[in-house]
Amino acid sequence: MGTIALITDYGTSDWFAGEMKGALLRVAPAATIVDITHDIPAGDVRDAAFSLLACYRSFPADTVFCVVVDPGVGTERAALAAKSGSCFFVGPDNGVLSWALKKEGTFSARRIENRELLPSVISTTFHGRDIFGPIAAHLSKKPSGFEAIGPIQQNIVELPWPALDHDKKYLSGSIIHIDRFGNAVTSIENDALKLLSHAPHKVRVVKYGTELPLCSYFQQVPSGKGLAYIGSCGYLEIAINNANAAAIFGIHIGDKIEVL
Amino acid sequence: MGTIALITDYGTSDWFAGEMKGALLRVAPAATIVDITHDIPAGDVRDAAFSLLACYRSFPADTVFCVVVDPGVGTERAALAAKSGSCFFVGPDNGVLSWALKKEGTFSARRIENRELLPSVISTTFHGRDIFGPIAAHLSKKPSGFEAIGPIQQNIVELPWPALDHDKKYLSGSIIHIDRFGNAVTSIENDALKLLSHAPHKVRVVKYGTELPLCSYFQQVPSGKGLAYIGSCGYLEIAINNANAAAIFGIHIGDKIEVL
Amino acid sequence: MGTIALITDYGTSDWFAGEMKGALLRVAPAATIVDITHDIPAGDVRDAAFSLLACYRSFPADTVFCVVVDPGVGTERAALAAKSGSCFFVGPDNGVLSWALKKEGTFSARRIENRELLPSVISTTFHGRDIFGPIAAHLSKKPSGFEAIGPIQQNIVELPWPALDHDKKYLSGSIIHIDRFGNAVTSIENDALKLLSHAPHKVRVVKYGTELPLCSYFQQVPSGKGLAYIGSCGYLEIAINNANAAAIFGIHIGDKIEVL
Repeated sequence: MGTIALITDYGTSDWFAGEMKGALLRVAPAATIVDITHDIPAGDVRDAAFSLLACYRSFPADTVFCVVVDPGVGTERAALAAKSGSCFFVGPDNGVLSWALKKEGTFSARRIENRELLPSVISTTFHGRDIFGPIAAHLSKKPSGFEAIGPIQQNIVELPWPALDHDKKYLSGSIIHIDRFGNAVTSIENDALKLLSHAPHKVRVVKYGTELPLCSYFQQVPSGKGLAYIGSCGYLEIAINNANAAAIFGIHIGDKIEVL
Repeated sequence: MGTIALITDYGTSDWFAGEMKGALLRVAPAATIVDITHDIPAGDVRDAAFSLLACYRSFPADTVFCVVVDPGVGTERAALAAKSGSCFFVGPDNGVLSWALKKEGTFSARRIENRELLPSVISTTFHGRDIFGPIAAHLSKKPSGFEAIGPIQQNIVELPWPALDHDKKYLSGSIIHIDRFGNAVTSIENDALKLLSHAPHKVRVVKYGTELPLCSYFQQVPSGKGLAYIGSCGYLEIAINNANAAAIFGIHIGDKIEVL
Repeated sequence: MGTIALITDYGTSDWFAGEMKGALLRVAPAATIVDITHDIPAGDVRDAAFSLLACYRSFPADTVFCVVVDPGVGTERAALAAKSGSCFFVGPDNGVLSWALKKEGTFSARRIENRELLPSVISTTFHGRDIFGPIAAHLSKKPSGFEAIGPIQQNIVELPWPALDHDKKYLSGSIIHIDRFGNAVTSIENDALKLLSHAPHKVRVVKYGTELPLCSYFQQVPSGKGLAYIGSCGYLEIAINNANAAAIFGIHIGDKIEVL
């Protein structure tokens, strides 16, 4: 049986993530459950959408990704399951799945409406346990059961991607995630560097004027010095070798970055 | 093989929770281990007891719950395994299992004393690894081995439940858990609301005089406004839509709440 | 299939630990993955080395330990896999495996150089996902594939163990780890106490002059009082019963301790 990978903002100090896994195992006792993270900032749909985009391609081909960051829980927003190639994505229709699905290109989405696949009692506040978890487990156990989940959803909510500006001489984007080490991931994907007519050689943090050399790996600069590089998820990142760039440079989500 | 679900105060920055899982897998290599949480405040038996009570009914029927918050480790307190319906509970006899067992109603308990089921060397400080983990794994692998664990324990230590006061016009309880989002769970279970002769419509935080409408879901109040509602674990909760109620209202464990 | 146990400094708020597990499962779908910890302080090779040493003997005999604290990622440092008895250790050649391997005594080590066992694209910054994880999964699935990993590494980088000083009257070492409860683990192993010609009875924190009785378990001193004892990992520790010794005594990593 396949892998079910979880992204939530439930944290790990309460029982929520564990209880959701209990509910998954009731439906799919042989599933392998992987916690991607439960520490998305509370309600931060964009950070969850980027975390999914950043890592989903490293998982086994038949993985079911269940992403529950759901500030609209209990309202009329749809609950979605989407199929793309051989993997599935399950979560609220608030854009949290949209960046990964856009990367996939072709996919089909369904609204979760078949009550036979859900518990008899559904809370108004914990759809990870009562809706998304059980459907992810159903898809892991029976991938052919996708159509039974509910009607086709023609259009899903899409999060806007932070705009890239560019001409032949420069390219700009913004900070989209800051990781545990203080490395700052930008919205500029590897391929976007080809939009420039020259080989890019440095990156500027606009707010502070800081200019950093574009390198291949950390040790190309001395300890304590800043650099830019293509990170492991395929996006341009900014860091300081052996230090916390976000703290030292004062970088925040949304700060503008230029490639020169 | 079944699920073993863990609640401890070991944290996740040391090796303790991982080492306990290693010890479990030595006995039951095919077990599915679920972390409910390892972040119970150090030595907080009541918070662990409530966390177990709040979530255990969502797990598969044959789950073994292993709960180790054990400030008396190394003293004469008994080590317990209890059987209720088809699931098992393992932990120190300090009340940490008592709220879930009381909810179950009928159960049998045994003292863990059969040295043949335990490692040859037992530390004085880490019974999660040396006693509770191995016994949980034994029960997961061989549910029929319950009687072999040790003698019957007639009376187990029970934690007092925070008192409910009520007449036909009002009902009062207290805050028993504050979650990651700042939502505050009270000691008032869903069914207790029927003790009132009228349909309850608001909740008062006595210390501050704050009065909150009793709602069905978060979005019934505007963003930034407070509400009360029956939470996903079946108890009355207090929250602020899209904000941290505990921080903003200054709510602490034990604060008194009245239903009007 | 066996257990793969992980120690990293990736944290759990980003997707790194989850993505590494996705990469493991692509190679070894039936592996049981245990998180020992992902919260090693960023780049702290010594803390990771001690965490591994402290717990690895509690795991099943055929466990593969994959330890990735790797401040030199992207440089010429070797990537190692080592075999000792029936278990395997995988990680960078920066000393992070050396204390466990020294404890084992006899082992063989190989440099990870066989590109056929690795993904076609290898990042310069995330070898947990691209090198160490896949090789750990390979060894878990096929223990006989050890020799295929790459050439023998004759000498591995060894971390110096914090020096012990002693004569017949006293023995000194230093603090090597502080745990979640504020208990401070020293570099003095149980057996080292036999170097003294008398039965040791107290422990002194040199910097503060604090003297603590050597006990067998916490409850031998009143709540709030300090003690020393042999901890669950076999090393002398310092604690306060029901309180945080590191915070109250002001103890830091490296502080000198004397046994009297």
